Amino acid sequence: MIESVNVIGARGRVGSAMSARLAERDVELRREGAALVLLCVPDRAIAQVAAELEPGPWVAHVSGGTPLAALDPHVARFSLHPLQTFTLGRGPEQLDGAWAAVTGETEAAVETATSLAETLGLRPFPLADESRALYHAGAAIASNYVVTLRRAAGELLAAAGAPAGALDPLMRRVIENEFQLTGPIERGDWETVERHRSAIAAVAPDLLEAYDALATLTARDAIAQGSRT
Amino acid sequence: MIESVNVIGARGRVGSAMSARLAERDVELRREGAALVLLCVPDRAIAQVAAELEPGPWVAHVSGGTPLAALDPHVARFSLHPLQTFTLGRGPEQLDGAWAAVTGETEAAVETATSLAETLGLRPFPLADESRALYHAGAAIASNYVVTLRRAAGELLAAAGAPAGALDPLMRRVIENEFQLTGPIERGDWETVERHRSAIAAVAPDLLEAYDALATLTARDAIAQGSRT
Repeated sequence: MIESVNVIGARGRVGSAMSARLAERDVELRREGAALVLLCVPDRAIAQVAAELEPGPWVAHVSGGTPLAALDPHVARFSLHPLQTFTLGRGPEQLDGAWAAVTGETEAAVETATSLAETLGLRPFPLADESRALYHAGAAIASNYVVTLRRAAGELLAAAGAPAGALDPLMRRVIENEFQLTGPIERGDWETVERHRSAIAAVAPDLLEAYDALATLTARDAIAQGSRT
Repeated sequence: MIESVNVIGARGRVGSAMSARLAERDVELRREGAALVLLCVPDRAIAQVAAELEPGPWVAHVSGGTPLAALDPHVARFSLHPLQTFTLGRGPEQLDGAWAAVTGETEAAVETATSLAETLGLRPFPLADESRALYHAGAAIASNYVVTLRRAAGELLAAAGAPAGALDPLMRRVIENEFQLTGPIERGDWETVERHRSAIAAVAPDLLEAYDALATLTARDAIAQGSRT
């Protein structure tokens, strides 16, 4: 159990939520002599900030895509990546219910990371350092590309004279219903898909490539689950 | 205000939720002599079922992608498409909070459709019949393709040894936080994007085309909102 932490980047989106949660859990936040230096800085700053730290305490970062080697020359090190998106407008409750990937090269490192995750209110799972790019690609698809889909879909609704915000209860329910695949591709209705393509080509042709690539993947999933395609 | 409805397809996913809600709101459900015949049948069955009905009452369908002409030869007609995904395991509460596209060719048709939407607990907005394909494409992108993204992302997490279900709190929060774009593309970090591409190419190359097409759209959105790309 870590009793004191120096959070670097405590005003950032992740750092502020983590600092607030550590304070709530009576972990001492201090600048000097902390048992752990937790780097909540942008990915590209991690290596430089780590290189400037005095060796001794645990050193960790909270990045999903950055390998542990970025923490050189420190050897008592780990990473803890909360699989969540954060905003400055909210507090430590943003951590509740989220999972966290913990990566360490020794048993002590994984144990320390796991214990920190639990203190933060996160649900830890181990992630191998070499699997990080794959994991981070999945996380980016599930978060960033959902934003992109919503913008693309909202653009089409707006062009049809419909309120884009009407999509939000639908998207929430898709998640609530555990991602059941429905719709024209699931039922093998390629005439409807062709009508979609013609309509998109007329008003937003730059969406067509993504529409088609996702149609291919969706058809593959529909076949895999035994639908009529 | 419609006082009696003959729901055809009342055992289906949409029909059962609508029937239950109409009953809750004291609308009479009857097979003969109803003021409205509401077709909750598969899209491809609408034209045939409509053609077999005696003219007289209002005739309506609940399909997003099907034009009003499918209701020929009836002239007292409209459509009401709930912008929601339904499952047989739940009841009329599935309608709560959802929007609905209402389409009619006369003022009376739009008024009747709007009033029915309100009775059902839906938030109606008008949709022109000729904008239907565009609207429906947007709805399909926001629902079906979110399922596809989740499956693709889950596949990558599983390949990385991480629990795919860890993505769900992340996806819920992306919606809660009103689709703020974050991540490598938003911050112009194309090195990370290249690491994603290499990792995907090694374990799931069939995802790469969609990954790239969505990266292009995401970069376009990032530029539009003034990020560093």
